Amino acid sequence: MNNLAEKLAASIRDIKDFPKEGIVFKDITPVLKNMALIGEIMDFFTDKTRGFKIDKIVGIESRGFIFGMPLAVKMNVPFIPIRKKGKLPAETVSASYTLEYGVSELEIHKDAISKGENVLIVDDLLATGGTINAAEELIVKLGGKPVCAVFLLELSFLKGRENIKNKKLEVISIAKY
Amino acid sequence: MNNLAEKLAASIRDIKDFPKEGIVFKDITPVLKNMALIGEIMDFFTDKTRGFKIDKIVGIESRGFIFGMPLAVKMNVPFIPIRKKGKLPAETVSASYTLEYGVSELEIHKDAISKGENVLIVDDLLATGGTINAAEELIVKLGGKPVCAVFLLELSFLKGRENIKNKKLEVISIAKY
Repeated sequence: MNNLAEKLAASIRDIKDFPKEGIVFKDITPVLKNMALIGEIMDFFTDKTRGFKIDKIVGIESRGFIFGMPLAVKMNVPFIPIRKKGKLPAETVSASYTLEYGVSELEIHKDAISKGENVLIVDDLLATGGTINAAEELIVKLGGKPVCAVFLLELSFLKGRENIKNKKLEVISIAKY
Repeated sequence: MNNLAEKLAASIRDIKDFPKEGIVFKDITPVLKNMALIGEIMDFFTDKTRGFKIDKIVGIESRGFIFGMPLAVKMNVPFIPIRKKGKLPAETVSASYTLEYGVSELEIHKDAISKGENVLIVDDLLATGGTINAAEELIVKLGGKPVCAVFLLELSFLKGRENIKNKKLEVISIAKY
């Protein structure tokens, strides 16, 4: 791992048996207390996606908001929230997906993305890839092109990267487990 | 209203009968597409809170994350998420509150704030003030001092400002209805 990956991994707190027995949860809240590290993470994502013309940055509720919005500010690109069912007030499209711990549904506003726009997806963690496939489905339904997805952490043993349906999506993560 | 308030109000989309009949919901998602406006909002909050020594910035799930995190980055202050019950993985304290549409519970990590620290609270909307009172309760339980709360919007007709229990809290909002 590179230097940033090591620093990030050192800031992550492992919480045993959350949200249920046998799961070791990667707690990212200590990272949020370290603004120098946040700055490095934002620089890393900006550098790695420089080759793409990004029209919209999508953050997935809720931790994707925490990292997606400052990246959108830094890159000067509009920010689009993807939220859990029933939270977005205007007209939406929706996609259901299987989580590590159940089934859920995500929504995006119909007017969030225009046809042909290149979209960058932000979330904290790549686990099974189910959330990303649902986010992609939403973006594609609106005519957008998901070109890149960035994560702080990747649980490689869950094979999320292989499970992502869109094989052209550039998948970038910092710390891998 | 000043110029920023007018610009912000012009970016807000009114959604009738959301989340239930008779409610006019203030949709902030168009604001997130306008990074120049977001920049002005962040500048405004930074200017208005310059007189306080802020040690921690607290954002309330989920829209408080969207505005709180870029403000924390800008002000170079650690960001602390207050989340709905059951979402934070480490040891928490909790507080229940009455929403416009029901009762809910908020949590904060026990190690999020240290004794005597000055805390700035960020959320998108000041409605009845219930959420802010719960956030304050959590901060005070950890020994922190809530000094300031900033909002994009204030629904003055719901009298949230008067309902805030801590009369020393500096309450700042941009657009008032």
